[in-house]
Amino acid sequence: MSTLEGFTIPKTQTAAVVKELGAPLEIEKSHPVKQAADLKPGECLVHISHTGVCHTDLHAKEGDWPVPSVHPLIGGHEGVGTIVAIGENTPNSPVKLGDRVGIKWMADSCLNCEFCRRGFEMNCPEVKLSGYTVDGTFSEYVVSYTNHVTPIPANLESAAAASILCAGVTTYKALKVSNTKVGDWVALPGAGGGLGHLAVQYAKAMGLKVIAIDTGAAKEKLVKSLGADVWIDFKTSKDIVADIQAASDGLGPHAALVTAASQTGYTQAISYLRKGGTLVCVGMPDAEMGANVFWTVFKSIRIQGSYVGTRQDAIESLDIAAAGKVKVIYEQKGLDALKSVYEDLEAGKIAGRVILEVSKQ
Amino acid sequence: MSTLEGFTIPKTQTAAVVKELGAPLEIEKSHPVKQAADLKPGECLVHISHTGVCHTDLHAKEGDWPVPSVHPLIGGHEGVGTIVAIGENTPNSPVKLGDRVGIKWMADSCLNCEFCRRGFEMNCPEVKLSGYTVDGTFSEYVVSYTNHVTPIPANLESAAAASILCAGVTTYKALKVSNTKVGDWVALPGAGGGLGHLAVQYAKAMGLKVIAIDTGAAKEKLVKSLGADVWIDFKTSKDIVADIQAASDGLGPHAALVTAASQTGYTQAISYLRKGGTLVCVGMPDAEMGANVFWTVFKSIRIQGSYVGTRQDAIESLDIAAAGKVKVIYEQKGLDALKSVYEDLEAGKIAGRVILEVSKQ
Amino acid sequence: MSTLEGFTIPKTQTAAVVKELGAPLEIEKSHPVKQAADLKPGECLVHISHTGVCHTDLHAKEGDWPVPSVHPLIGGHEGVGTIVAIGENTPNSPVKLGDRVGIKWMADSCLNCEFCRRGFEMNCPEVKLSGYTVDGTFSEYVVSYTNHVTPIPANLESAAAASILCAGVTTYKALKVSNTKVGDWVALPGAGGGLGHLAVQYAKAMGLKVIAIDTGAAKEKLVKSLGADVWIDFKTSKDIVADIQAASDGLGPHAALVTAASQTGYTQAISYLRKGGTLVCVGMPDAEMGANVFWTVFKSIRIQGSYVGTRQDAIESLDIAAAGKVKVIYEQKGLDALKSVYEDLEAGKIAGRVILEVSKQ
Amino acid sequence: MSTLEGFTIPKTQTAAVVKELGAPLEIEKSHPVKQAADLKPGECLVHISHTGVCHTDLHAKEGDWPVPSVHPLIGGHEGVGTIVAIGENTPNSPVKLGDRVGIKWMADSCLNCEFCRRGFEMNCPEVKLSGYTVDGTFSEYVVSYTNHVTPIPANLESAAAASILCAGVTTYKALKVSNTKVGDWVALPGAGGGLGHLAVQYAKAMGLKVIAIDTGAAKEKLVKSLGADVWIDFKTSKDIVADIQAASDGLGPHAALVTAASQTGYTQAISYLRKGGTLVCVGMPDAEMGANVFWTVFKSIRIQGSYVGTRQDAIESLDIAAAGKVKVIYEQKGLDALKSVYEDLEAGKIAGRVILEVSKQ
Repeated sequence: MSTLEGFTIPKTQTAAVVKELGAPLEIEKSHPVKQAADLKPGECLVHISHTGVCHTDLHAKEGDWPVPSVHPLIGGHEGVGTIVAIGENTPNSPVKLGDRVGIKWMADSCLNCEFCRRGFEMNCPEVKLSGYTVDGTFSEYVVSYTNHVTPIPANLESAAAASILCAGVTTYKALKVSNTKVGDWVALPGAGGGLGHLAVQYAKAMGLKVIAIDTGAAKEKLVKSLGADVWIDFKTSKDIVADIQAASDGLGPHAALVTAASQTGYTQAISYLRKGGTLVCVGMPDAEMGANVFWTVFKSIRIQGSYVGTRQDAIESLDIAAAGKVKVIYEQKGLDALKSVYEDLEAGKIAGRVILEVSKQ
Repeated sequence: MSTLEGFTIPKTQTAAVVKELGAPLEIEKSHPVKQAADLKPGECLVHISHTGVCHTDLHAKEGDWPVPSVHPLIGGHEGVGTIVAIGENTPNSPVKLGDRVGIKWMADSCLNCEFCRRGFEMNCPEVKLSGYTVDGTFSEYVVSYTNHVTPIPANLESAAAASILCAGVTTYKALKVSNTKVGDWVALPGAGGGLGHLAVQYAKAMGLKVIAIDTGAAKEKLVKSLGADVWIDFKTSKDIVADIQAASDGLGPHAALVTAASQTGYTQAISYLRKGGTLVCVGMPDAEMGANVFWTVFKSIRIQGSYVGTRQDAIESLDIAAAGKVKVIYEQKGLDALKSVYEDLEAGKIAGRVILEVSKQ
Repeated sequence: MSTLEGFTIPKTQTAAVVKELGAPLEIEKSHPVKQAADLKPGECLVHISHTGVCHTDLHAKEGDWPVPSVHPLIGGHEGVGTIVAIGENTPNSPVKLGDRVGIKWMADSCLNCEFCRRGFEMNCPEVKLSGYTVDGTFSEYVVSYTNHVTPIPANLESAAAASILCAGVTTYKALKVSNTKVGDWVALPGAGGGLGHLAVQYAKAMGLKVIAIDTGAAKEKLVKSLGADVWIDFKTSKDIVADIQAASDGLGPHAALVTAASQTGYTQAISYLRKGGTLVCVGMPDAEMGANVFWTVFKSIRIQGSYVGTRQDAIESLDIAAAGKVKVIYEQKGLDALKSVYEDLEAGKIAGRVILEVSKQ
Repeated sequence: MSTLEGFTIPKTQTAAVVKELGAPLEIEKSHPVKQAADLKPGECLVHISHTGVCHTDLHAKEGDWPVPSVHPLIGGHEGVGTIVAIGENTPNSPVKLGDRVGIKWMADSCLNCEFCRRGFEMNCPEVKLSGYTVDGTFSEYVVSYTNHVTPIPANLESAAAASILCAGVTTYKALKVSNTKVGDWVALPGAGGGLGHLAVQYAKAMGLKVIAIDTGAAKEKLVKSLGADVWIDFKTSKDIVADIQAASDGLGPHAALVTAASQTGYTQAISYLRKGGTLVCVGMPDAEMGANVFWTVFKSIRIQGSYVGTRQDAIESLDIAAAGKVKVIYEQKGLDALKSVYEDLEAGKIAGRVILEVSKQ
């Protein structure tokens, strides 16, 4: 066991806790902190400064996903902080005391199973999920895992880095598996949202041409400022499939990233995609996809489920942000505001991301 | 224009014609034959010896697919015959008079559009489809296209080669895009059927381990004789998902080829596939896929529409058959039997493939 | 046969001819022009407005490559002009009279052989090479092939497009097969040269980080203005391998494009490349590569020969230029200047590319 | 720390030791054994039953490779044995006491660096090499690493499994990166040797067509019995390049695996390979490759360095052997015979592999 020199780990902390399935969120001011001596090999204690809030946190709280979450639960899976302790007998640690690191959805995986060996870490049967099967980043201190915390590039501010660890890496990875190359067209429904506005920027960084689909003048202005080549407002378009295809050589885009929960997004994508194109599924509704088999075959469409990203994907997505190519649009609040943020999320009132400052560092 | 030396092209022929949408099939004994002088550049006249019958021929006849077929129509798209004439001013012909060639579903494509240039010939906007948008192989003579007819390897009999040109190349291509390698597990629902029994053999030729799924002792015997590693009878299995996963390391197969028209095939495949696995869609029902989005994403599943195959795929699938690794199980009849074959197909009574001998050569 | 309305094809033209191997270049003022009626199916007559001059033209003239060139020879293989006639009985032409098109190194291929079918058109045994095995673009009129001429995007000037057809597509394709993705490092020895300055721009368009290697303040200024992230002067660097690795995370670049004729370029690349990296060979010296086997294996290096590009590659490379992402740096002269341009090329005096205006259009 | 129940780890053992660079091999009868309490987290003690002998062991002994080996050295890197102890505080161990496991060339890697994260474990800067930078399998007990030892399938005998762990996985991986598919041709120079005879079998398991190149009636008989499609004796062939191309459609093989140390193997391969083909470098001479740049580019050749294999590759190569598709041809001796085996290896007298029985289990 080792502790950051000059740092004293307190016995208690402020944390946002959901005590049982369906219970309201409570801000506890004296939640216990795991002490350095209690950390197991491979564990580290991270002092959180900032955390993002994601729609998945609502699923975790409500337990409405087919994969069960644990309770009592501390949510949060896009956080940044400092390593203040590392468990004794931790071998091969790629990080050290004092490192500024990120905590992502995938808190840990075994690195030894078939899935980890083959680069599908997120599919490891022993995977630990931040703020879902283990405590997350809605607290001042969280236990995480040296193998999986992500070093934050020096020139990237913590508040700016937080959402890269979920929304960023997820859209980056989705584009990485979208089977596209420089000059290709990609359609981004929901381009003005939390994931969408990052997808626009990663797509531009890769040299793709972007069709941004969303609604309203504010979102139009935002996505155009981020480099979108074409804007389509789904509320004013008379024929969205025709408009998307007209914008992309008359043939349709080479790929589409669907983050929405509704069947419509998938059904439309099969219609407007270029033959041989790829539909990347990112959103995770527990619902039918609504993809027509005849057209999927006849058009040689690939539908690719893309689930968050690996350790390497997280590092790459941060590097691209650190190079100034991707900026998270966010509003900063305090941890106390989490409850009202949840309400705004459920009401669909959040533009971009909300970042909570958990502690001043 | 040039005609095979010593060969006289008759003025009329026997052909199986569907005069209009929904009309009954008629065997016409004096259907006109296009003469050599009337062939355009790039066209060739093929004297058919054998043709297979495919379920798609029923769709062509009934016109129940979202893509319209032409009428009057001569169906048939897996035929073998001899080139007896080639149109004048045909440039770069890769075949010559007297060559024994195959005619496949894709009769012609432009070779110049984006899709042809990128290896998606089947998605060419100018594609001609045998027995669907141009006359097919249910006649003694058919006009085809020098760029797309497929040379038949010398040691492969015409009757044995016919079904490779549709059922064979389709399953071969589906396996080629299944993202598998030697030693991987592939699930083949419908393994005892017309496409399935060829899929079993192509999969074994690639070094895959095969889970054959079908029903009845006859099909069990057949697929085992073709090398299937595991047999699962879907009628007697109490939990088909559990049985398939138990047979494949407890993790599920790396890929599944679904040829069936029902949603069940797709829903089940998402459930039993290994994380990171690939579902190849081959069958073409005009129906929803029934794939759950949450699990597609959470398991990092790829769903790949695979539509017939290219010129190169056809050649490769024939070469593998010529090497003795794939044999079509078929029953041979005369062209006159086509009507009753259709009835048997609709009634689901056909085991393997039916091959019609169109002319003795 | 068809001729552009209102256009009269002259009987003679100005052309730069090399009568026999090693003979001096002669500007002939009354070289015959092939007339529309003499064009074969698939041929077209292109009225050249601009042509680039490439180092390969010297090889063609001197006949010092292992593949023989024909004589008398009209060189030139990066030209732009207008289609003024198309041969009778040309099927499926993707271009029409009046189209502005480019002529590239690969003038024609059969589209039917194994190599064409598999996307290796440049390796077609029947390939025709502009200015090497068939007449090229150093003349006012040249016979080319409808399947292979490349449509020029409307917003790209002919002089600016010419060098994309050889130097551009060659470097674009080399980057395409370099196994890199957004954020990766690529080393470009000769970055300030004819190929190099285009490679810098294509690499930036793809989101790569560029290490430009060349010498002199002028080239430094040029490549930095084109977006190069790091500049290394090989004349002033004390340890070029160390400098390159230091610039790229200490691990070396993920890929290198070697266009030079000397062994040094290859030997160094094996040394500085990141483990698992790719060395793309673009230059074509008839010489040993000088790659060490031990290190190639131990570092898991891939060495990829990349030879010009396909029809699709040419279209893609032009589209990227038309989008404003790649600009050819060139000096414009007249066709009469070709002889002195050759002398300057041999003396290594050319910066960027030289474009000859062949006819005013 | 934990020790296999009922098993007593002795204080000393028999081991084959090279005391310093260039020193003769000595069989020490009382070499110390590391005790369970001294194992670090992540380490395990393996009781060796069988080990293969590889040509690389000679390089380790002589220190003639550019990467330094340690001394005193116990060589050996393809061994099988039983785990008798595991270090205390070992997290996530994928193996347990009593497991039969293999030890391969790559004894350990960090699993956390960029190379490990990206699936290039063998290129990890912290890699430990069995019998080269850490003690190997030429002793009764060896310290290895839980993350990297390879479970042996139950139905594979230890003596039969040993050489799969180096010669097997190396040729399997080389074929895996050879860019080939079912029905393609692969040339295997040295097909009758230690690596070659395994390459023949892995190639056949993948559905490749094999051109076996070697010399002598015994090797001809061997490779034909293993399924080689074509045999070429390099001593009696008048034109080996022509013979290889004639055997493969006149176009040459799609890939070649070169295991030899001489330039000839590489030069020839560039000549006979099909355009677009892949040359996989497996042998590791510290020598120039002798590949001609012009032809590498003109023929679009890929040259791929393939260095042993990952944990996943090792498991896959053993699974294929366990399925009965690959059998190691070997002669079994005792550990005492190692010195004479080295002499035979240096004299080129070994056919197939030599397996040493280190202890009876």
